[in-house]
Amino acid sequence: MHSFSKAVVVILATLSSADAFVSPTYQRNAFSSLASTATDFDLNAYIVEKNGPITKALQESIVSLEPQTAKICESMLYSLMAGGKRIRPVLCLAACEMFAGSDEKAMPSAVAVEMIHTMSLIHDDLPSMDNDDLRRGKPTNHVVYGEEVAILAGDALLSDSFKFVAENTKGVDPERVLDVVVRLGKSVGPKGLAGGQAMDLECEGKPVDEVSLDDLRWIHTHKTAALLQVSVAAGAIIGGATPEEVEACEKYALNIGLAFQVADDILDITQSSEELGKTAGKDLEADKATYPRLLGLDGAREEAQRLIAESKKALEPFGDRAIPLLALADYIINRKN
Amino acid sequence: MHSFSKAVVVILATLSSADAFVSPTYQRNAFSSLASTATDFDLNAYIVEKNGPITKALQESIVSLEPQTAKICESMLYSLMAGGKRIRPVLCLAACEMFAGSDEKAMPSAVAVEMIHTMSLIHDDLPSMDNDDLRRGKPTNHVVYGEEVAILAGDALLSDSFKFVAENTKGVDPERVLDVVVRLGKSVGPKGLAGGQAMDLECEGKPVDEVSLDDLRWIHTHKTAALLQVSVAAGAIIGGATPEEVEACEKYALNIGLAFQVADDILDITQSSEELGKTAGKDLEADKATYPRLLGLDGAREEAQRLIAESKKALEPFGDRAIPLLALADYIINRKN
Repeated sequence: MHSFSKAVVVILATLSSADAFVSPTYQRNAFSSLASTATDFDLNAYIVEKNGPITKALQESIVSLEPQTAKICESMLYSLMAGGKRIRPVLCLAACEMFAGSDEKAMPSAVAVEMIHTMSLIHDDLPSMDNDDLRRGKPTNHVVYGEEVAILAGDALLSDSFKFVAENTKGVDPERVLDVVVRLGKSVGPKGLAGGQAMDLECEGKPVDEVSLDDLRWIHTHKTAALLQVSVAAGAIIGGATPEEVEACEKYALNIGLAFQVADDILDITQSSEELGKTAGKDLEADKATYPRLLGLDGAREEAQRLIAESKKALEPFGDRAIPLLALADYIINRKN
Repeated sequence: MHSFSKAVVVILATLSSADAFVSPTYQRNAFSSLASTATDFDLNAYIVEKNGPITKALQESIVSLEPQTAKICESMLYSLMAGGKRIRPVLCLAACEMFAGSDEKAMPSAVAVEMIHTMSLIHDDLPSMDNDDLRRGKPTNHVVYGEEVAILAGDALLSDSFKFVAENTKGVDPERVLDVVVRLGKSVGPKGLAGGQAMDLECEGKPVDEVSLDDLRWIHTHKTAALLQVSVAAGAIIGGATPEEVEACEKYALNIGLAFQVADDILDITQSSEELGKTAGKDLEADKATYPRLLGLDGAREEAQRLIAESKKALEPFGDRAIPLLALADYIINRKN
């Protein structure tokens, strides 16, 4: 494998740079030494390492240069910098690294998916939606800045996400950047976050026994998995993946997205508000359809394991290069908040 | 001039297509016959002619293919198809036609700016913002669908606008499409609609004599003019304009944007709710800073005239080809609603 990779480097180095990005194999060798084997891979160290540049890029992504924009920019940054594990940007960078051997070119996409995620949290927390006062242990955006500024800060984060990718992605075929823009757009629209949240709110209004497992799966596919899918797909596309490779990454992300939500439902009933950093037990109180409710707690845990196994299977073609993404899949169902 | 244009066609036809778009002069001849002179130009017929394909493209831009997305798509279409004069798409198509002799390639951008405009209307009408129940003579989106669906429909329209441009613009250098995406993003963020609306709401909370003409101008530059600027700039960019030509178009649009708002302030105090299709006299009732209040009614009318003269001056280099845009500038201050 090692010497095969070297041979590929030699062969592909003779192609023009325009041709080379289509088949990114020639750079894979650089990364395989980092990943080595699953057993000695330290995911925590990996996440910490990625989070340094991610935090810096997020902080620098919004700058108010005049007094008139101070308040809206402050509100945008308040939620964008509220912490969290930055799972979506980490997935994006890891996917890029898997194909390109470096994550550098995917940073604008990583910032964009975190901006979109933050927008969805701000809008979902609003009084007319989930009416949440607490998020990541801090007062929610509308509690601090007022409902009107919170709505506008969400709008601004959403539009800035597209601007950020289109403006700052360098050294990548512009057709690939446009592909990322299209996928980001889909991940928010009727077949993404907004559609998933609308259906979720609609189901909340129904008696719990009228909500089926299919409804729940539809909601989570669009409300949670769609953004994880574009996070991984954007990284792969920027990293030079082929359409088939992007599809494999999307399958991985769909399944970790569904598993993520099953795990969230489990945490809601097994953890305290303090452990979660947000209000616990809300689903039960709201008499909401959840996986534990529909499948039982053990059934929900089995479903999460099944989904994680599915997600890992999708990455088999990438061998050891997939170790960070595989470790992230395990992390998603083993997390405590 | 006629034979000069023909010569340019012959010379430029020999260039590769990648080079040709940089200098769009070769296609101008096709359009100059349509524009002829200002005196016999029928703006109403022009707007009606453009509105046919615009309405069709808007209607087709949102299709719900499954029952789960029916409600959010219906809510998006309710506001998108609520009529209005489609000034922004018309400006976009007219700008493209001025450079390319045809408006066809700019239709996805025209749809995008109308989606963004519609999003801003839905969100601005919300109870926590302007709290409007009536828009274009119909109940506002949140009155019909509820506040939560209205917020999500706005989010979905905003993200769909970027997707629509990136996915459907054909036969144009992808770098130009990315440029349009960047400008669309800017037109909504802190230095666009969202920033303008946030500052507007902040000023509404102040005593009216603490709001200066500079504040008002800042608000309208970002809340109104920014989207008109990107409407014209996107058409120009897709139509093959040079950076200097795009800049001239933006200057035109900035000034019609400011004039548009001065005219709006004047209409608010001179027209009835019935004539406007929305609640009249709201500015006075809200004790809001407006141009007529700061400059007097005559002063405001003079300011509108001055701005329209400025906007027309910016189009001088384009001669007769600018006739539709010049007529649109006049229309903006002479309209009755």
